[in-house]
Amino acid sequence: MKIDAQAFQTLVADYQQRVDTSLEHWLPAEDVNPMRLHRAMRYAVLAPGKRVRPILVYATAQTLGIDLDRVDGAAAAVEIIHAYSLIHDDLPAMDDDDLRRGRPTCHRQFDEATAILAGDALQALAFYIISHDPRMTADSGARLEMIEKLSLFSGSRGMAGGQAIDLAAVGRSLNIAELETMHIHKTGALIRTCIQLAALSADELDPERFAALDSYAKCIGLSFQVTDDILDVVGDTAVLGKPQGSDSALNKPTFPSIIGLEASREKARELHENALRALSIFDEQADILRYISAWFVEREN
Amino acid sequence: MKIDAQAFQTLVADYQQRVDTSLEHWLPAEDVNPMRLHRAMRYAVLAPGKRVRPILVYATAQTLGIDLDRVDGAAAAVEIIHAYSLIHDDLPAMDDDDLRRGRPTCHRQFDEATAILAGDALQALAFYIISHDPRMTADSGARLEMIEKLSLFSGSRGMAGGQAIDLAAVGRSLNIAELETMHIHKTGALIRTCIQLAALSADELDPERFAALDSYAKCIGLSFQVTDDILDVVGDTAVLGKPQGSDSALNKPTFPSIIGLEASREKARELHENALRALSIFDEQADILRYISAWFVEREN
Repeated sequence: MKIDAQAFQTLVADYQQRVDTSLEHWLPAEDVNPMRLHRAMRYAVLAPGKRVRPILVYATAQTLGIDLDRVDGAAAAVEIIHAYSLIHDDLPAMDDDDLRRGRPTCHRQFDEATAILAGDALQALAFYIISHDPRMTADSGARLEMIEKLSLFSGSRGMAGGQAIDLAAVGRSLNIAELETMHIHKTGALIRTCIQLAALSADELDPERFAALDSYAKCIGLSFQVTDDILDVVGDTAVLGKPQGSDSALNKPTFPSIIGLEASREKARELHENALRALSIFDEQADILRYISAWFVEREN
Repeated sequence: MKIDAQAFQTLVADYQQRVDTSLEHWLPAEDVNPMRLHRAMRYAVLAPGKRVRPILVYATAQTLGIDLDRVDGAAAAVEIIHAYSLIHDDLPAMDDDDLRRGRPTCHRQFDEATAILAGDALQALAFYIISHDPRMTADSGARLEMIEKLSLFSGSRGMAGGQAIDLAAVGRSLNIAELETMHIHKTGALIRTCIQLAALSADELDPERFAALDSYAKCIGLSFQVTDDILDVVGDTAVLGKPQGSDSALNKPTFPSIIGLEASREKARELHENALRALSIFDEQADILRYISAWFVEREN
C-alpha cells in the first residue's frame, strides 16, 4: 500500500496494539500458580517498548499480502524471545543493569532466581506459540521451518552466541569487523527471523522476494544497532529509558568508539540506502518496510 | 522383547552410548566460535550421567516397535533440556551448588554469565533438533505436537514452574500434596515428555496404549523423585556425585522430612506397583519399561 509519514505512524501504532493483544492472549495469567513467575514473565514482556520485532513481522506480512491474524502468533513469539534475552542480559552476572525501558529490570523488581526462570519459561513459551497457534499457516512443514529458524537464530549460533561474544569483548579492543560479527549475531539474527517467520506464513514463497527481504533484514538489523550505539553517546537518558553513556561506561566496544561518531552516522545512512536497494524489486506494497528502515536510523530512542 | 536383569543392564548401556553419539552429533564443536559458550554447553551435557530421560525415550520406542534411529533426536533433545535446567538450577541465585555429577558445576567451571547463556542456548538447541532432524517421523504434524509437548512441559506450567515452586518452598513447610505438585512439575513433566515424544514417533498412535504409557510415566516420574529424596538422606556422597544431605541442609522440603523415611520407601514401592499396573495392557514387549521402574526405586545414585 502507498503510505505517507502519518499513515506510517498510524500503522505502527496499530501493530503495537495488535501485538500487545496477542501477547496478553499467550502469556500466563498472573493469578495462576506459580504466580510470582507468571507476574515476572508478564512484567518483562508487557513493559512499554517499541515492539520493533513484531512491527517487522506485521509489516512483512502486509507487504506480502498475508492476513495479519496469521502472524499474530509469530509476532508474539519474537517479542517474547526478545524479552527473555533482555531479562537474562540485565542480570548481575551479565550487564548488571538496574533500569530497562524506564523501569526496574526484572531481577530488581522480583529477584534473580525468578528472573532467570522467567527468561527460561518465556523461551519455551515462544516455541509453544508457534507449535500451537491454530491461525498460523496450515502447512505444518512451514511451521517446523519457522521453529527451525527461531531456534537457530536465537541459540549459540545466533542471539545467545552474540551475547557471549559481547561479554568476551568487554574491556577488549575489537576491530570493526569483529564488532559487526557480534551484532549480526546478537541483534541481527532475531531481526532476520522476524522477516522469515512472516515470509514462511505466505501460501507461496517466491525465492527471489524471500532473498530480497532477507538482505533488507540484514541491513536494518545492523543499522538498528549502529543507531543504538550513536544514541548511547548523544541520546537523552529520559527518552532512552536507560542511562545515556551506559555502554561506554561498561567499556563496551561500540561503533562510535571504534570509527567515531560521524563515520557511525554515515554507516547508518549507508545501511539504510542498502536496505532500500534490497527492496527495489517490490512496488509501493513495501513502503511500510522502507519507512521502518528510515525510522531505525532516525529514531531518538 | 523378553529380558532378564542382565539383558536390561546391556540395553541401558546401549541406550546410554547411543544418546551420547546423538548428543555429540548435535552439540556445537568446541573449536567453533563462540568457543567458551560451546565448551560450556558440551561440558554440561556430556558430563557423566545416568541419561534417564533418553533411556525412557528409547525404551518406549522399543516397546512400541519404533526404529531407534527415529528417536535419536528426541533422546538428545530431552537430555539437553534436562542439562540446561541443571545448569540454571545450580546457579548462585538458585540452589548455589558447586558440585554436579561429581564435577564442578557449569558456573564454577566457567563463569555465571557463560552458564546462563549455555542454558539458554541449549534450550534453543533442543527445539532446533526436533524441528530439523530428518530421521524423525515424516509426519510434520506429529513433530509440531512434539514441540508443543516439550515447550509446554518445560515451561512455566511444567519444569520451570516446578523450579519456581521449589524456590518459593525453601524454608517453608509444605504438606505432602504441595510437595507432590512441585515434583509433578519439576521432574515429572519432562519424564512424561520423554514417553510422549517416543509415542508421537509411532506411525500410528493407539489412544489406549498412549494413555497407559502416560500413566506409567506419571508414576515413575514421582517415584524417581521420592527415591532422590531418600538417597539424599541415606545415600553415599561419592556414589551420588553431590554431598549427601545437601537438600536437607538447604532446608528444602523432601518426602522423608514430611512423611518420614519408611513411609517414603513405602510410597516409592506403591508408585512402582502402580507403574507396573499401568503397563498391564502390554505384553513382554514392555518389560524394559518394567525394569526401568524397578531401577528407579532401587537405585543407589
